Amino acid sequence: MSSICALATASGGALAVIRVSGEDAISIVDSVCSKSIENLPANSVHFTHIKDENNCVIDEVLVSIFRAPHSYTGENSVEISCHGSSYIINKVLALLVEHGCRMALPGEYTQRAFLNGKMDLSQAEAVADLIASTSQASHHVAMSQMRGNISTTLSKLREQLLHLTTLLELELDFADHEELVFADRTELLELTKKIEAHIEKLTLTFQTGQALKLGIPVAIVGKTNVGKSTLLNRLLKDDRAIVSDIHGTTRDTIEDTITIRGVQFRFIDTAGLRQTTDEVEQIGIQRTYAAIEKARIVLWLFDQEPTEKEYLDMQSRCEGKKLLAIQNKVDLIDTNYNLSSINSKLSTITSQLIKLSAKHGTNIEQLEQAIYEAANIPALNDSDTIVTNARQYEALCNALTSLQRVEQGLSSNLPCDLIAEDLRLVLSSLGEITGGTITSQETLNNIFKNFCVGK
Amino acid sequence: MSSICALATASGGALAVIRVSGEDAISIVDSVCSKSIENLPANSVHFTHIKDENNCVIDEVLVSIFRAPHSYTGENSVEISCHGSSYIINKVLALLVEHGCRMALPGEYTQRAFLNGKMDLSQAEAVADLIASTSQASHHVAMSQMRGNISTTLSKLREQLLHLTTLLELELDFADHEELVFADRTELLELTKKIEAHIEKLTLTFQTGQALKLGIPVAIVGKTNVGKSTLLNRLLKDDRAIVSDIHGTTRDTIEDTITIRGVQFRFIDTAGLRQTTDEVEQIGIQRTYAAIEKARIVLWLFDQEPTEKEYLDMQSRCEGKKLLAIQNKVDLIDTNYNLSSINSKLSTITSQLIKLSAKHGTNIEQLEQAIYEAANIPALNDSDTIVTNARQYEALCNALTSLQRVEQGLSSNLPCDLIAEDLRLVLSSLGEITGGTITSQETLNNIFKNFCVGK
Repeated sequence: MSSICALATASGGALAVIRVSGEDAISIVDSVCSKSIENLPANSVHFTHIKDENNCVIDEVLVSIFRAPHSYTGENSVEISCHGSSYIINKVLALLVEHGCRMALPGEYTQRAFLNGKMDLSQAEAVADLIASTSQASHHVAMSQMRGNISTTLSKLREQLLHLTTLLELELDFADHEELVFADRTELLELTKKIEAHIEKLTLTFQTGQALKLGIPVAIVGKTNVGKSTLLNRLLKDDRAIVSDIHGTTRDTIEDTITIRGVQFRFIDTAGLRQTTDEVEQIGIQRTYAAIEKARIVLWLFDQEPTEKEYLDMQSRCEGKKLLAIQNKVDLIDTNYNLSSINSKLSTITSQLIKLSAKHGTNIEQLEQAIYEAANIPALNDSDTIVTNARQYEALCNALTSLQRVEQGLSSNLPCDLIAEDLRLVLSSLGEITGGTITSQETLNNIFKNFCVGK
Repeated sequence: MSSICALATASGGALAVIRVSGEDAISIVDSVCSKSIENLPANSVHFTHIKDENNCVIDEVLVSIFRAPHSYTGENSVEISCHGSSYIINKVLALLVEHGCRMALPGEYTQRAFLNGKMDLSQAEAVADLIASTSQASHHVAMSQMRGNISTTLSKLREQLLHLTTLLELELDFADHEELVFADRTELLELTKKIEAHIEKLTLTFQTGQALKLGIPVAIVGKTNVGKSTLLNRLLKDDRAIVSDIHGTTRDTIEDTITIRGVQFRFIDTAGLRQTTDEVEQIGIQRTYAAIEKARIVLWLFDQEPTEKEYLDMQSRCEGKKLLAIQNKVDLIDTNYNLSSINSKLSTITSQLIKLSAKHGTNIEQLEQAIYEAANIPALNDSDTIVTNARQYEALCNALTSLQRVEQGLSSNLPCDLIAEDLRLVLSSLGEITGGTITSQETLNNIFKNFCVGK
């Protein structure tokens, strides 16, 4: 395979790292260096100069040398650490291309690592998630997956499925002995159901996985002037103050997200719905509905007793969501405000009533705690398998469907060979997750095309 | 000195490099790694895991180990190459801080390199220029300076100045022998003038140095609808097409600059002057004047014969600038348009008349060549000393002033000790450039505060 090069860091910093990988990686870099690096030992770092065709020094750099198979890609590799000037970066890449490299495609280093058996496909996909992770939780699921816990889980399932196949083949061998069939099928059915339950459990982690990966969608709803913006700003500010503790590190600007105990919450942006028209009331309601629709957690803000209609409306709209009722402006609250009646009505739709002052920050910590609890994130252990990837989820669903057909086949006494066909489909679907059954380059390219260049 | 840490690359890429430097750098990184790195050899790279206080894996990383004095800073250093996730970067930095590092100040690594004698101050300043360089020319001057040619030039000057001092001391020793004084002073005067000429030559490079570093300011002026925007877009597009040859590398978005033969030209933005008022004519003229004022090269665009007043106006405004007259829309040009009269009038104010069609791109290469030549950039050799730094320029000017006082003193037979005082000032000013005579931490902090963090 041809040697590839790309900038692996973002441009604009003090340093930049250019990654070169392929059989000729070391000799190509050697040809642009002022000192020979070709015979230097693996895993060593050397100070040298990159020179252009006119022998002009382009940069003083550090080159790290890795030799196959002991590198990220499994190929010979060199990492060039140069100054972060856009001129230098472009010039070094151009020189490498002149000497026989080609520019790497998105994710091509990781794709090569997969093709060279350094990691399976679920681990490769986790690398992209890891790079994109911005919270403890999204980092945790990506890291667990990168370190192979989906692979481990699937390999256990595969073992069970192979056992099932063996039993089925055994039945096939004894097809003439009718009395054996039923005894075996009970065992087969039990095993099938066990595997089914396991796969189903995995598919159910997807929603949580997506929420952890992308942030849990939260809607703040309520009438005009109840303090929605003040509350949002208060939550954002509290969060930002924490992050800015470490100076010198720029936090990626992601608007309107907060992190509570390592989990990211994403406030739904309804800006697109802010049309100007006379029917303000109507639009206000529609905007609320749209926000609720997309949310997993709804913060319902009010500063006076909601009407009967509002209660009913909220109840019907928030089915299946976590609803937190928030009584804002407690510092100003009217003494005629009947708290006991609120409590009794609310208790039918939510167990949570939080009294706060968004303006003064009163009870904000209590609200954050309630938001965190509403997310209902299971305690994450290193060994937990959580599916976060849509492609993997789809493959699991396909496996489940095929497995359900296996179960039906077993129950309805279908012949072994038909059942075996479905069983093969289950194995094939699961194999797609770790990549073992993917043979088309196009499929692979599709998987890696959303990676960043340089990874 | 305490150990420092910082992100050395920009955030947002596939990889990020965190730099740790200081006596305890290796042991601090060791305490957050899963394998012991403390006794590993210098200049080696190792795969390991960074773990947090709960033994959770934060990332799989490569650590490069450098031991004092063989590192950039001259101290023990570790470079941690981790995944570019903002969560991981923040977490690793936080762990390092917990284990005894402090976040580095802007330019602190380079400042330490300077303090540890790895480079002088002019070289240190060149590092920042190198990182900021976006064109071949700005790269060239920064690289030459980083590799020490200002230092070499100054060390030669210093030698001559020390020789002058010795001669002056000799005169002091023989102060009683009046007859010796005049003979020596002629030699002293000659030597002083020689050094003066050398320093003056250096100060004269500053304008070119600044132009190469920041881009050469170009104004496009002319009446409404003569095609100024079309021409600008044409020039920008031609340039962009060249750079985008290397795919996968993002070019820093710097608006309205083009690079011709490695030199960057910066089009003066007059947007701020675009006020809305009725006196459009007046404002148009003022805008033109303001643009010309800031420019080094003026592109005067017209599509019909300029009036006498316009010629005179341009002539007086463009004194000391390079003026290129451009006859646009040659594809449409009126046959009554008297080219010979244009040529004769123009010849008094510029030797350059370029006929082009900005719309169709006719003769654009000729214009680019003319712009390049108008910049009058001397051919750059590796050994050329060009001053690009305002602080260094100021120090040179101060040295020159003191040296002129030395010359006056010598001419007016001032006593040796007074002249020696001025001579010390010359040496001190020159010493500021390489940093030898800078002793205040505050001055150093001021010099390094504009560096990026991580360098």
